[in-house]
Amino acid sequence: MKVFNFNAGPAMIPQAVMEKAQKEFCDYKGSGCGIMEHSHRHKLFDEILERAISNMREIMGIPDTHAVVFIQGGASMQFAMIPMNLAVAGKPMEFADTGTWSSKAIKEAKLFGDVKVIASSKEEKYTRIPAVDEMKIDEDAAFFHITSNNTIYGTQYQAFPNCPANVPMLADMSSDIMSRKLDVSKFGMIYGGAQKNLGPSGMAVVIIRKDLAERTPANVPTMLRYSTYIDNNSLFNTPPTFGIYIFGLITDWVKDMGGLEVLEGINNKKAETLYAAIDGSDGYYRNPVCPCSRSKMNVVFRLPSEELEAKFIEEAKAAGMIGLKGHRSVGGIRASIYNAMPLEGIERLVSFMQDFKKNN
Amino acid sequence: MKVFNFNAGPAMIPQAVMEKAQKEFCDYKGSGCGIMEHSHRHKLFDEILERAISNMREIMGIPDTHAVVFIQGGASMQFAMIPMNLAVAGKPMEFADTGTWSSKAIKEAKLFGDVKVIASSKEEKYTRIPAVDEMKIDEDAAFFHITSNNTIYGTQYQAFPNCPANVPMLADMSSDIMSRKLDVSKFGMIYGGAQKNLGPSGMAVVIIRKDLAERTPANVPTMLRYSTYIDNNSLFNTPPTFGIYIFGLITDWVKDMGGLEVLEGINNKKAETLYAAIDGSDGYYRNPVCPCSRSKMNVVFRLPSEELEAKFIEEAKAAGMIGLKGHRSVGGIRASIYNAMPLEGIERLVSFMQDFKKNN
Repeated sequence: MKVFNFNAGPAMIPQAVMEKAQKEFCDYKGSGCGIMEHSHRHKLFDEILERAISNMREIMGIPDTHAVVFIQGGASMQFAMIPMNLAVAGKPMEFADTGTWSSKAIKEAKLFGDVKVIASSKEEKYTRIPAVDEMKIDEDAAFFHITSNNTIYGTQYQAFPNCPANVPMLADMSSDIMSRKLDVSKFGMIYGGAQKNLGPSGMAVVIIRKDLAERTPANVPTMLRYSTYIDNNSLFNTPPTFGIYIFGLITDWVKDMGGLEVLEGINNKKAETLYAAIDGSDGYYRNPVCPCSRSKMNVVFRLPSEELEAKFIEEAKAAGMIGLKGHRSVGGIRASIYNAMPLEGIERLVSFMQDFKKNN
Repeated sequence: MKVFNFNAGPAMIPQAVMEKAQKEFCDYKGSGCGIMEHSHRHKLFDEILERAISNMREIMGIPDTHAVVFIQGGASMQFAMIPMNLAVAGKPMEFADTGTWSSKAIKEAKLFGDVKVIASSKEEKYTRIPAVDEMKIDEDAAFFHITSNNTIYGTQYQAFPNCPANVPMLADMSSDIMSRKLDVSKFGMIYGGAQKNLGPSGMAVVIIRKDLAERTPANVPTMLRYSTYIDNNSLFNTPPTFGIYIFGLITDWVKDMGGLEVLEGINNKKAETLYAAIDGSDGYYRNPVCPCSRSKMNVVFRLPSEELEAKFIEEAKAAGMIGLKGHRSVGGIRASIYNAMPLEGIERLVSFMQDFKKNN
């Protein structure tokens, strides 16, 4: 039986990508070595890097004003690099706080200057995204930072705020990057840990407006400067070559699927199907999120008791569905349904939910 | 024909490791998913992490005073983390400068305090390692830093200096870690980018005396603090799980080979064979390094002309040997012969060198 993997990240990778990578694992394009063993200065890797970047540009419609770079350390390292590079003396760094990951970004920024949280749903236990018109971004802010999708709480921005013209909007899109169409030019920076929609863990993909890299103070170390990655096309030091290779294969797969428009349609259908099963369960399954903020990537729900939740997770596993346990900080069930999860996986989950309810 | 890969890094990975990883790429231990797709909190990954660390401890004889952690960003990120964490106000950070990588470490340290280069072979174009008794380390130094093997210049410490009791010795061992026996307890920290002896690119393995992590100032960001990795067993955020998995397989392989003692014997034999071929070529092949400092990991040599060098590289490729081009900053030939390179690869190279000399 095929296993569907609902992990929040590291997460499912498209089957076609896994099979291709397996096939050429020990001998990439007849070179006699795996791509993992090749130099990052080798022509074979050059081609991979260039193709991955141009695919990403095409898929997301990234304008020439923005660079695409690969930085190790995941999104968590970005929480530090952002204020180290983009803080401006005397200007507040502004954030919307929509959960654990926002809070972590805020904590790191406080080490480097004044931080202002201009919108928060903390009081509501992060069960919604503050409305766009609740977000009053100061005209003199150094930047404004959001977390576009919150894996733990299962919330997602449905629309993005309008920043004042001189304030770059920065978005941690770790868990919904490349899952829907959006206007990249509205963002100063979009970044994401790769291990959800973009590949294996071990790097962040960063889309950054090139002029912002000029802000970095002289005392920031080489490896923590955005300009190091932009100026050297992510090859200042040895990048995570295998991760970039898998990311490249994933971008090929997205294009083969028909691009973001088609993929977004499938993602919508997947989420609708799953929320419909929850909403149609007469309260047996409960999604705690404000309907206006429901995530299409991480669908969280509760059962009538924690005992039933534990049983649900165990029996789902036996039925070929793993990774359904909610984050340890909130409990419950979480189905992470990123790009690589096919509709078939959702259908199996929904059918299982109906049976489980009947029997319990 | 089997291809031997003499790349300096990313480099050859033991054949047995590549084959095992390929076999279980899409279905790790019958779980229905690749290990790359599993959560870093999953029991299957826990086992990998624990086994990799305990293998490393056993192979290198790492005492309980030292932690083993995995940090993204390669050795280059360590060049920044070291002074950020281990500088001490009013005390000089001391370095031996033995080439490009030492110089890069020195450059980053200067951002964080006083740096003193107490030994250097720069004037001799880095063709030797300064003798141990040339290294006068101050008793009040914050630390003393060396680069144990220099990939570009083909030099390697044959013995390590004795640091004053209160001065921790830190060693960038990126290109010779786990290739020979040494007394880890003499070092405050040993680190290496994984992509030579330890696996794919995308992380550094850091062996650090735990008490040193207490030095870190409060304003250092979470992801750049050694304590974050030590206190969370490298699981504060999502680590590069696939890299750690390959690293774990490599440690299994080292143990299967008979441990470091056996491996060091093979490494010695490989280097001796290759240097003998150079030295016995009546000056056709020339190794520019002081015999007292010759590296057993990166063997560099020149031919009578650059034209012949280019021809050598091309013909070697046709004979199933790739990655022999010297670093772009110095030219010539470089054979990187890390743990994974079997003696068979050296024998093919030596036989090719003899034929090439005869014909050219």
